[in-house]
Amino acid sequence: MNIPGRFADILDKQGFAHVATIGPDGAPHNTPVWYDWDGKHLLISQTPKKVKWRNIKREPRVAVSISDPDDPYRNVQLRGRVTNIRADDGRKFIDSLAKAYTGEDEYRYDPPGVDRFIVEITPEHVTTYGS
Amino acid sequence: MNIPGRFADILDKQGFAHVATIGPDGAPHNTPVWYDWDGKHLLISQTPKKVKWRNIKREPRVAVSISDPDDPYRNVQLRGRVTNIRADDGRKFIDSLAKAYTGEDEYRYDPPGVDRFIVEITPEHVTTYGS
Repeated sequence: MNIPGRFADILDKQGFAHVATIGPDGAPHNTPVWYDWDGKHLLISQTPKKVKWRNIKREPRVAVSISDPDDPYRNVQLRGRVTNIRADDGRKFIDSLAKAYTGEDEYRYDPPGVDRFIVEITPEHVTTYGS
Repeated sequence: MNIPGRFADILDKQGFAHVATIGPDGAPHNTPVWYDWDGKHLLISQTPKKVKWRNIKREPRVAVSISDPDDPYRNVQLRGRVTNIRADDGRKFIDSLAKAYTGEDEYRYDPPGVDRFIVEITPEHVTTYGS
């Protein structure tokens, strides 16, 4: 699913993706995360033991709200599902996010031994607002 | 439920509340809205015919993610439920939001005849991050 061209810039910026998932009791959960956009998928980093991890393993449907970090009145909403979860070999993805967001070469905030995974979200519905 | 004191300022600022609701098919929906905080409840403005309106009428459980508009690494997450929906008599609430967010005395973006309602969200779980 394509993102309307005049909103595509938001996905290339270092904003925050508020990712809503569904818990085991059916109630929503909603937290902000870093993201990357590969042209077709929103990519986020996750570790096991997180609520979000457990939720998407059970229920892949998610809703993501991303505002332009330079103008909160421009927003993209992606509804879709997690279509792939793969190991972040060599921590390349989380380190690339850290580089983009903080300028640091490595993400240094995980406890030792924590594995990182790349979660791929495929949008099925895209809504925008703003100009 | 109390908000930890050092994060209470976020609820008094003019940030955006990304409000996740559950759709009729069980999939989440997530959009940013203006908010106010009355000390115990998050208050947002809604109009009928909105997806969010239909969702909360069916399923009152919501998850709200609010980042400090001055520092996106400070965030409050409220999980709870819609505990009251009442008419916004005289449009006082939506106008007060417009005043706080835009400086304008009235909210001027509704089509004629649209009724505004005040949606009260009572937090049952509060999570914060940042400092």
